[in-house]
Amino acid sequence: MSDLKQQILQTLLNGNGESISGDLLGKKLGVSRVAVWKHVKTLMESGHTITSSAKGYAMVDPDDSLLPYGFPKGIQERIRYYPTLGSTMDQARELAQRSTIPHMGVVVAEEQTSGRGRLNRQWISSRGGLWFTIVLFPKIPPTLSYIYNFAASLSLSETLGQLFNLDVSVKWPNDILAGHSKLCGLLSEMETRSDMICFLIIGIGINVNNFPKADEPGAVSIREILGRKVSRRDILTRFCDTFGDTVKQIDAPDFNPSAVMHRYRKHTSTIGKMVRIETFNRTDTGRALDIDDSGALLIETPEGMTQKVIYGDCFYKSPDDPQ
Amino acid sequence: MSDLKQQILQTLLNGNGESISGDLLGKKLGVSRVAVWKHVKTLMESGHTITSSAKGYAMVDPDDSLLPYGFPKGIQERIRYYPTLGSTMDQARELAQRSTIPHMGVVVAEEQTSGRGRLNRQWISSRGGLWFTIVLFPKIPPTLSYIYNFAASLSLSETLGQLFNLDVSVKWPNDILAGHSKLCGLLSEMETRSDMICFLIIGIGINVNNFPKADEPGAVSIREILGRKVSRRDILTRFCDTFGDTVKQIDAPDFNPSAVMHRYRKHTSTIGKMVRIETFNRTDTGRALDIDDSGALLIETPEGMTQKVIYGDCFYKSPDDPQ
Repeated sequence: MSDLKQQILQTLLNGNGESISGDLLGKKLGVSRVAVWKHVKTLMESGHTITSSAKGYAMVDPDDSLLPYGFPKGIQERIRYYPTLGSTMDQARELAQRSTIPHMGVVVAEEQTSGRGRLNRQWISSRGGLWFTIVLFPKIPPTLSYIYNFAASLSLSETLGQLFNLDVSVKWPNDILAGHSKLCGLLSEMETRSDMICFLIIGIGINVNNFPKADEPGAVSIREILGRKVSRRDILTRFCDTFGDTVKQIDAPDFNPSAVMHRYRKHTSTIGKMVRIETFNRTDTGRALDIDDSGALLIETPEGMTQKVIYGDCFYKSPDDPQ
Repeated sequence: MSDLKQQILQTLLNGNGESISGDLLGKKLGVSRVAVWKHVKTLMESGHTITSSAKGYAMVDPDDSLLPYGFPKGIQERIRYYPTLGSTMDQARELAQRSTIPHMGVVVAEEQTSGRGRLNRQWISSRGGLWFTIVLFPKIPPTLSYIYNFAASLSLSETLGQLFNLDVSVKWPNDILAGHSKLCGLLSEMETRSDMICFLIIGIGINVNNFPKADEPGAVSIREILGRKVSRRDILTRFCDTFGDTVKQIDAPDFNPSAVMHRYRKHTSTIGKMVRIETFNRTDTGRALDIDDSGALLIETPEGMTQKVIYGDCFYKSPDDPQ
């Protein structure tokens, strides 16, 4: 994006939603009123939420904006913002492959036209939600990559609980529930080379100010729960801080997975539940007993045996459901 | 490669090392003697080991040849043979990305000009050794990928023990030793998408008929141990069978990692040894107690504590070495 367009966005963002006339904008930036209008028009066409009225131009909902300039120093340098993307995962992968995004960089989009969830399922990502991918360049082997996913989901649960006093929990392995409804999903992808991770990308979708029920009956948004819009920027800022602290712990020489998994267990609602775990070729049912330090779920089968489940889609059952 | 060149190679291979005249070859293939010579020359220039004498053309060491036609049906269709490659890993990755190699496909080269070992170290791969990468498209999450590496190293240990009655063992995690010298190395790479593995490639280097000591003092080849040349094709064939059977077990719905790890423990020489484990930012020492079903090494530290080591380079120590 041109410097001038960046300056226009930044000025409008600092305007806190107040209109700024084309004349004033032009004077600030040293260009004509007509040049300002041409650039604003291009910005609007590419998906930026700017209003144009007799009083001038204004940014819609500046507190909610995900433009880099709105984030605190230390985070804004790492934000890669796009009004619209096919998928933040694909964009993050490309940036990571070209090494043009730093460790803990964030690719965020207002909407995804072909967002994907776990197991290549479609993930509806309309405007109002918070859709982003965080990029890590960890110095660990692929075997340990799971710890970042658990760190991300527990950080997300902490963030949402603290910011909005929401009753959230993590459903094993990495979904966030509000009550029984799905508030966030998480998926991760990586490339490895010579037994080490080249990069790991963690995609997170949070239903914030959108209305997901029409597309996904079991989903809910923060706006639907609280009855008001909230700032996606506040969520992303707090998450970057919380997750960043946890990643620093993981990257320390004396790191032990049990520290993260101990924190994770405080956030999960899965332990004690009757669960059904589905993978592509089998289904297991039982009572969830514990989640061990490798991230595996231990269940007690109907036959009274303890079984270790390493992956799968987890569904909570009522004890009265048929086996 | 042109059909005609393939037919020439196949005919020479079937000749079992006997010379076949250019006239006869030309008649068999329906081309002139001069055309045969032109094609043979190109084949020789591209690295195929063909001799040309007054009696005609002959394949050098046909029993050792890695040309697809020499392998049994069921394997030959999966062999991708190259006289020389930068790295079988890079070639395998490209074929896997383009889906132009099947599950359990094998990329094999007579020599690698930039072969790599674990942690991006250089891996010398001169003629005479067996350098290949096997490609898998497993339907499992990245967390479980380790099981294929352990399956590969135990299959390799079984193969070499059975074929040549060699005293081989696996040094945790996946090196093969003959006595105290390194006979084979293994590394793996993968790409994941939507929490599942897209493809996994396992690179294996075996010192067979080469003389590795000049480049790597701690290494040894089968030829050096047995005092004779052996057939790389026999090794690769037996390995494909053994590893293939194990992969089928892993891919079964009721698979349990402990079955593979139980077999692995029978092949490792690490348990009971005094070891030093190095990672990029720390070193641990102690007595190796066991290897658990997640592939982690349990060691007893000098302080008498049990410690779980998930990855690292393992070195065997004499009990008298300084800590």
